Amino acid sequence: MTSIPHTTTRRNVLIGATATAIPLLGTGAAHAATPRGGTGPHVGVLLYDGYSLLDPTGPAEILSRLPGATVTMVAQERGPVRTDTGDVAVLAERSIDEVDRLDVLLVPGAGNRGTVGAMNNDALLGWIRRVHRHTAWTTSVCTGSLVLAAAGLLDGRRATTYWASAAYLESTFDVTYLPRRYVRSGRIVTAAGVSAGLDMALYLASLIADEETARAIQLAVEYDPRPPFDSGDAAQAGPELKERALRLLAQSQV
Amino acid sequence: MTSIPHTTTRRNVLIGATATAIPLLGTGAAHAATPRGGTGPHVGVLLYDGYSLLDPTGPAEILSRLPGATVTMVAQERGPVRTDTGDVAVLAERSIDEVDRLDVLLVPGAGNRGTVGAMNNDALLGWIRRVHRHTAWTTSVCTGSLVLAAAGLLDGRRATTYWASAAYLESTFDVTYLPRRYVRSGRIVTAAGVSAGLDMALYLASLIADEETARAIQLAVEYDPRPPFDSGDAAQAGPELKERALRLLAQSQV
Repeated sequence: MTSIPHTTTRRNVLIGATATAIPLLGTGAAHAATPRGGTGPHVGVLLYDGYSLLDPTGPAEILSRLPGATVTMVAQERGPVRTDTGDVAVLAERSIDEVDRLDVLLVPGAGNRGTVGAMNNDALLGWIRRVHRHTAWTTSVCTGSLVLAAAGLLDGRRATTYWASAAYLESTFDVTYLPRRYVRSGRIVTAAGVSAGLDMALYLASLIADEETARAIQLAVEYDPRPPFDSGDAAQAGPELKERALRLLAQSQV
Repeated sequence: MTSIPHTTTRRNVLIGATATAIPLLGTGAAHAATPRGGTGPHVGVLLYDGYSLLDPTGPAEILSRLPGATVTMVAQERGPVRTDTGDVAVLAERSIDEVDRLDVLLVPGAGNRGTVGAMNNDALLGWIRRVHRHTAWTTSVCTGSLVLAAAGLLDGRRATTYWASAAYLESTFDVTYLPRRYVRSGRIVTAAGVSAGLDMALYLASLIADEETARAIQLAVEYDPRPPFDSGDAAQAGPELKERALRLLAQSQV
């Protein structure tokens, strides 16, 4: 029942739009000619227990396509770090003690438990403050902005966060909340909830490289979003939908 | 330099829009009342060497919010499975030998090396065929549709895939390519490149649960996409942008 294509054609399943692109899609030669990593930005993504899976992985997918980029998952200790659902774990390749310089720091958001845990983790907050001194861009997704705020990085700044955390952010910290997909304040860029990290990462790509590179990365990940529904904007959502959304989140989290 | 909010307020950083939502966002009680997992769909995500990070993680983020859902990362062997860039690894919690029944199977896409590897891996293809016999939904993201096709699941069907793989899909298999974000053919749903998995996952959520649940999940992950650029549609992209996109992909992959 299996279709068996010519193995020769299987050497390249990505037929480039242009002949010159095809050789690069071979596996060996392309990389001998264009070794990756180390020559571009070093992006560090902080993982902590209970983060939301898409928060770190969406931006990592996009920023990893920057020329020469290196993406490193960092946590308090090396090893698997579980998401808010407890079902999935991404491997932290380095501990915070092993990482002191990054071009880009990204702090993801989490459920209530994970966010509170990170906000009360002095080791993580101290590391964020130390690394931030030398970053080109310090960034967050979703409630990651609460972690940046707890580290003192957002004092007096404008920022965004997860829609359901906006009131907490403004009432707890000296921060002005802006209901945008991402907000730049100096070299700090905060993104709204979960999926907003994708939009922020493309913006960061244009700042780190240039707009043409960012546009090419958007095409590389075919980011032409067409959700089947139009209910992602909290400003347009009624109380029942908001309650249902928060209930689903709470019930899915451990 | 750190702002120190009252620890009492840190018990709940997600202030729900409605009073009734707030109790669910406490950490302990909510889960005693609403244990998660096992009562809803069992989603299995197949990981294989060289997959693209967002392909499995975007849909996993969304489908994990379905009531009672369980998401399991599956690979030929248990353990960390590296992405196409080699920088990041997600943990496979189960080997294919340990999983024979799934409500939803999701096969992510990969770079050229990873896709070709999976298409030529008879153990993976055989497992996909076996599991597919009993799934409610068998799905793919990006070049994952080539893996489904290599397993013989797309014979005579309409499907989508990564824009740069469309010609290969149609020329190699008995498949009609449709340039859409996702295509349903019976109980098989294929998504276009990388980020299209998010749109497909919301569609799947509406099929598995209902539209109101899918809309609530869209709000839960604040999926109100607003990319800073509008270059994600290959049909609108010129040859230079396509070449640049494919070059960035090739250079970022190991």
